[in-house]
Amino acid sequence: MARVVQKYGGTSVGSVKKIENIANRVARVVEDGNEVVVVVSAMGKSTDQLVQLANDITKNPSKREMDMLLTTGEQVTIALLTMALQKRGVDALSYTGGQAGILTEANHGNARIREIDSARLNEQLEAGKVLVVAGFQGIMEDGSITTLGRGGSDTTAVALAAATKADRCEIYTDVTGVFTTDPRYVEKARKLQAISYDEMLEMANLGAGVLHPRAVEFAKNYDVPLMVASSMVEETGTMIEEEVTVEKNLVVRGIAFENDVTKITVAGLPNRIDSLPKLFSILSSHGVNVDIIIQNQYDANHVNISFSITQCSLKDTVACLEQAKEELEFETLHHEEELAKVSIVGSGMISNPGVAATMFEALAKNDIFIKMVSTSEIKVSAVVSEDDMVMAVEVLHDAFKLDEVLAEAPEKQLV
Amino acid sequence: MARVVQKYGGTSVGSVKKIENIANRVARVVEDGNEVVVVVSAMGKSTDQLVQLANDITKNPSKREMDMLLTTGEQVTIALLTMALQKRGVDALSYTGGQAGILTEANHGNARIREIDSARLNEQLEAGKVLVVAGFQGIMEDGSITTLGRGGSDTTAVALAAATKADRCEIYTDVTGVFTTDPRYVEKARKLQAISYDEMLEMANLGAGVLHPRAVEFAKNYDVPLMVASSMVEETGTMIEEEVTVEKNLVVRGIAFENDVTKITVAGLPNRIDSLPKLFSILSSHGVNVDIIIQNQYDANHVNISFSITQCSLKDTVACLEQAKEELEFETLHHEEELAKVSIVGSGMISNPGVAATMFEALAKNDIFIKMVSTSEIKVSAVVSEDDMVMAVEVLHDAFKLDEVLAEAPEKQLV
Repeated sequence: MARVVQKYGGTSVGSVKKIENIANRVARVVEDGNEVVVVVSAMGKSTDQLVQLANDITKNPSKREMDMLLTTGEQVTIALLTMALQKRGVDALSYTGGQAGILTEANHGNARIREIDSARLNEQLEAGKVLVVAGFQGIMEDGSITTLGRGGSDTTAVALAAATKADRCEIYTDVTGVFTTDPRYVEKARKLQAISYDEMLEMANLGAGVLHPRAVEFAKNYDVPLMVASSMVEETGTMIEEEVTVEKNLVVRGIAFENDVTKITVAGLPNRIDSLPKLFSILSSHGVNVDIIIQNQYDANHVNISFSITQCSLKDTVACLEQAKEELEFETLHHEEELAKVSIVGSGMISNPGVAATMFEALAKNDIFIKMVSTSEIKVSAVVSEDDMVMAVEVLHDAFKLDEVLAEAPEKQLV
Repeated sequence: MARVVQKYGGTSVGSVKKIENIANRVARVVEDGNEVVVVVSAMGKSTDQLVQLANDITKNPSKREMDMLLTTGEQVTIALLTMALQKRGVDALSYTGGQAGILTEANHGNARIREIDSARLNEQLEAGKVLVVAGFQGIMEDGSITTLGRGGSDTTAVALAAATKADRCEIYTDVTGVFTTDPRYVEKARKLQAISYDEMLEMANLGAGVLHPRAVEFAKNYDVPLMVASSMVEETGTMIEEEVTVEKNLVVRGIAFENDVTKITVAGLPNRIDSLPKLFSILSSHGVNVDIIIQNQYDANHVNISFSITQCSLKDTVACLEQAKEELEFETLHHEEELAKVSIVGSGMISNPGVAATMFEALAKNDIFIKMVSTSEIKVSAVVSEDDMVMAVEVLHDAFKLDEVLAEAPEKQLV
């Protein structure tokens, strides 16, 4: 017997028929003697429909009222799934985020969970109830309804797993697990059996959209074993857990990539201690999110600063820098569009020198020119031309033998 | 300046356009310097759509989950109306029933309001906020969401008016007020300027569908002046208030009627003290709702009991009485279908003897045969053939001069 939190996303509960399927799955897990908390999102397109209603009224709805509006989506799903479970003889109860004791910051539209008052949930679990909780939502101290922002339902599931001391948290989604790289682009991509929290965090931050970084961080901080698997196919997913429990044979665990990267170069900036802080505080005050930053010496008294941004920030960035040209005293401003970032991720690289060298060699051997580099303890990112992106991923997938070493263990049915 | 609670029903908020209209109305009342609480129902057909979703899953959903599901309807409306008000520069905030402090009995699907913790609402009203509250819903002590059953949104509005010590409660609906009788049947029907709580209560209980009896009773108990008016047309409605403030020139205020009445006669029941209690406890245990009851002597040792029921209870009633024939020891059972009940209502009749006589004479003069009679302090009901119903109402409308005395005061814009 285990205590399990399961999360099903919007497409998994997109119709009455799909809700019935999920009810069958949950009923089986309950029959096997497990204690179950189910976290669900709004049905398929229902959130879009609610957003459309709001837009019909105003282009600029208040965040508080958007939260009031959108949280009805999950409330509908929890009621319907609970009815479907009760029909199957499962003793289930539905809870909104607030009723489940999920207290958030006072920040409508993008609140973080502050704490979970789990007394009621634990009491009901011990009484043998299956709890169906609305994802993506909570309440502020004054009782106002909040939403958790992107990836919110994953975070709800992980937080409830932590609060109810669950044995694991299972995230069911439209992919069968975490892959070495995106299988839509790279045919050789293989599903990972396991990945560490830190690796997953890097992968998530680098745009591998399976799990939201906030949910992974929460799981890491509270030591909640996570599983990502398909809500449609019965196939073992990927475990995300502590370093020690993850198979150690891989230096690089996966390759993440994203396009729409733009490189900005501010040339001839005075080599003074306040130049950099000034530059980046101007960017930040204009809401420009900077990713990789590189500094070069230009001459004795000047430096060049290059940084990467997303394509859509280009106009704002150029405008605010041109405007601040006198204040910053730089000489020229350049930019290069249609770039991509390719990153290798793996906690094994901490103890394996030469990983970056292998990466650069493999890319060079295939005439892929590197325009920027950034590294962290468990990641190396290279900015290349957008045209080279998929080839770069394939080359690196081969170079680090990601397709070879993953001979999978026999499938084990988790659900 | 006044403190006003306004309630708009489902058809009044049935589309984004209609919500914008309501926002215009409310904005004007706010501009005039009033403090406003708005209570709204779910948008038009949205409740039906939610019920359909539940029915697609199970024919027998639990009441708790139905409450969880259906209350999302009003939650959508409060968010949208609040956005529409904010767009017009009105400082509005939405509240679910629970957030508004509406505590109910632990009775899903048909809860009564137990108390209202109005501290928060009063605080916000004093801070100049316009409050938009979800009708029809509240929470139990443990935080579970409940619905108030039929007429629930009217009751929410009246209860909030009582709790916030509002100057009046305005119920906006698809009729322009309370009429002397149903204008769809009787051309001469006239809108009343005012009616007392007790009269309205009788009218409501007799099937005049403008206001739910529960809401009227609440208003009477807490002395909340009520107004019923149209949400579409700007036209003075009908005030419902204490006896003293209602114009006194009318003996009869209105005429209510309903068809689908069936008369049952249990003939030759032993004239014993336990015969009646036995008979009606059998009916009640089978869920049969009895309206008028008449007892006649049959012979020295037997009585005849006649009572009226709705057409749809006929089968159940006959079945359960036939089954209990031996126990009750009656001789024969008859029934007469296709009857109607016509009632005159007016608190003036307490001090005006001869009202019933006038009624019976008027009906007799027009060859309308009376089959049953029932009276209360402010009402006389007569059961007649269904074919005579409309004529009976017209005859009584004339007999009590309901079209003459109501020369209306000059229209005064309340909204």
